Amino acid sequence: MKKTLLTGIQPSGNPHIGNYFGMMKQVVDMQDEYTTLPFIANLHSLNTIQNAEEMKKNITNVVIDYLAIGLDPKKVTLFKQSDVPQTTELCWIFNTIVTMPYLMRAHAFKDAEAKNKEISVGTFDYPILMAADILIQDTDVVPVGKDQQQHVEMARDIAEKFNRIYGETFKLPEAIIKKEVAVVQGTDGQKMSKSYGNTIPLFTSEEETEKIVMTIAMDSKGIEEKKNPDDYNLYKIAKLFVNKEQDTEIRAMFENGGVGYAEIKKYTAKIINDYLRPMREKRKELEKNPERVLEILEKGGKIANERAEKKMMNVRKKCGLR
Amino acid sequence: MKKTLLTGIQPSGNPHIGNYFGMMKQVVDMQDEYTTLPFIANLHSLNTIQNAEEMKKNITNVVIDYLAIGLDPKKVTLFKQSDVPQTTELCWIFNTIVTMPYLMRAHAFKDAEAKNKEISVGTFDYPILMAADILIQDTDVVPVGKDQQQHVEMARDIAEKFNRIYGETFKLPEAIIKKEVAVVQGTDGQKMSKSYGNTIPLFTSEEETEKIVMTIAMDSKGIEEKKNPDDYNLYKIAKLFVNKEQDTEIRAMFENGGVGYAEIKKYTAKIINDYLRPMREKRKELEKNPERVLEILEKGGKIANERAEKKMMNVRKKCGLR
Repeated sequence: MKKTLLTGIQPSGNPHIGNYFGMMKQVVDMQDEYTTLPFIANLHSLNTIQNAEEMKKNITNVVIDYLAIGLDPKKVTLFKQSDVPQTTELCWIFNTIVTMPYLMRAHAFKDAEAKNKEISVGTFDYPILMAADILIQDTDVVPVGKDQQQHVEMARDIAEKFNRIYGETFKLPEAIIKKEVAVVQGTDGQKMSKSYGNTIPLFTSEEETEKIVMTIAMDSKGIEEKKNPDDYNLYKIAKLFVNKEQDTEIRAMFENGGVGYAEIKKYTAKIINDYLRPMREKRKELEKNPERVLEILEKGGKIANERAEKKMMNVRKKCGLR
Repeated sequence: MKKTLLTGIQPSGNPHIGNYFGMMKQVVDMQDEYTTLPFIANLHSLNTIQNAEEMKKNITNVVIDYLAIGLDPKKVTLFKQSDVPQTTELCWIFNTIVTMPYLMRAHAFKDAEAKNKEISVGTFDYPILMAADILIQDTDVVPVGKDQQQHVEMARDIAEKFNRIYGETFKLPEAIIKKEVAVVQGTDGQKMSKSYGNTIPLFTSEEETEKIVMTIAMDSKGIEEKKNPDDYNLYKIAKLFVNKEQDTEIRAMFENGGVGYAEIKKYTAKIINDYLRPMREKRKELEKNPERVLEILEKGGKIANERAEKKMMNVRKKCGLR
């Protein structure tokens, strides 16, 4: 039997190719190996998005993004966290067995508090809701970045504590630390990030993509000089998208000399556009039919809710609430 | 239209006459004036009772206690907090709009933390769950002791903040500060309290009641001396139970002299037993039929759940979760 994998997705506007290779693609790559439960963490998002229209738009958009890049609703159970309100019930129950000093040791809280004393209780309590998200679905594995590893450990601690107090109930989840994706560099050579304004959006037009690629910083070497492609940010970006043939060709453009940067950039833009074209076309199709997205979420929500309700029936009995 | 009154009841073993006059009777006295929603706060209790059998026994017992003293399930909606899990969902949503510094100002947290650093997150988050309990039912009034007044104020603050962010949604509840009941004194003259071992249990046998009354501390005045009844703890206890006739009679026993303390105590025990007899008999009847208690809770739970679900449909829409 396949292991169950849970992964939370935060709705976050317009993704770029750094998001795609850093995180989004990995979710899609795992959907065959695991019983995959990707969920839109909208109850978490309430800590930052406090506007119904924005929230709904973000949810629809992120689902369309993931479907466009290949997440297959026939293979995975894609759902909105808020369609499993039992998670908040379990979060409360966990609140009663977790101590304040324990939760205050969470990195995320310490970081958030260091930046801003006025953090919300929801930001503080977030690792407990995350534990509930994980444990309510009998999750085996949770793919996380290094910075989130502590949260999976907390979920294990909480599961163990509950099991000790109320008897064996929860499976202990394991973190899968996501393979280190080489940091995707932006057009200026820094890490690609919206805050640096150096991104190549995943879902933009081919013209816009080319225009952005044309701005990638190069050096002042002459056309005829032979160059090592690995020294160039342009090549590092292209490399994420090339097939073998394209790789040979673009390397040759650098190595042999005689090709101007403008031409190499145009070729890079073509490589990127070729790679992204099917996703972009799929996204356009999906955009025309937002009802379809809502249907997928609704169906996934029902399945996830049923799984959670079954688990909670047991939890409530164990606590004497039923 | 009647105002809606919500009042939480904590399951707490064997009540004494101090609990009865101090709190329990007041709930019953209000049931005609208000649309009354008394609920067993078992999600709160999880902070201290972490054993299913004990939890279930406590819940059944407290419901039997209240039915015995006259709470009428035809007039009130009596329910278990855990049968309205939407409360935890709303609690989470409130968590995301309440800041840590605000919640840390709660007296209950400060008191609990002063005593024990290892308090649970649930104890910390308790005022938010209480706000959710109140606001999810469109409550108009909440009867509280002075020590709980701050919690109703917090519920108002949270309602106002939610309304400001998401648009008019919640009614602002009012606290009714419970009329000061003269502190019921125990058999030793101190405040009646289980921790002092000076209680007269509400639901014990008539023999046991008499035995306890016989231990009430008196003074060394002679039988023939005339006494002022108001100087005696025995009379203060008797006074809670007397009708007019009995009051005249017992006062005369003190004031005229010639009656020994043993006799006055026996008469007091009779007064108490006469008063409590119907409740005690009713309790015995109810004990024989715990299924009836569960039925009442189930029925109340359904009504409270429907009210809450209706409210939550609106809240979810306002937040963009639906």
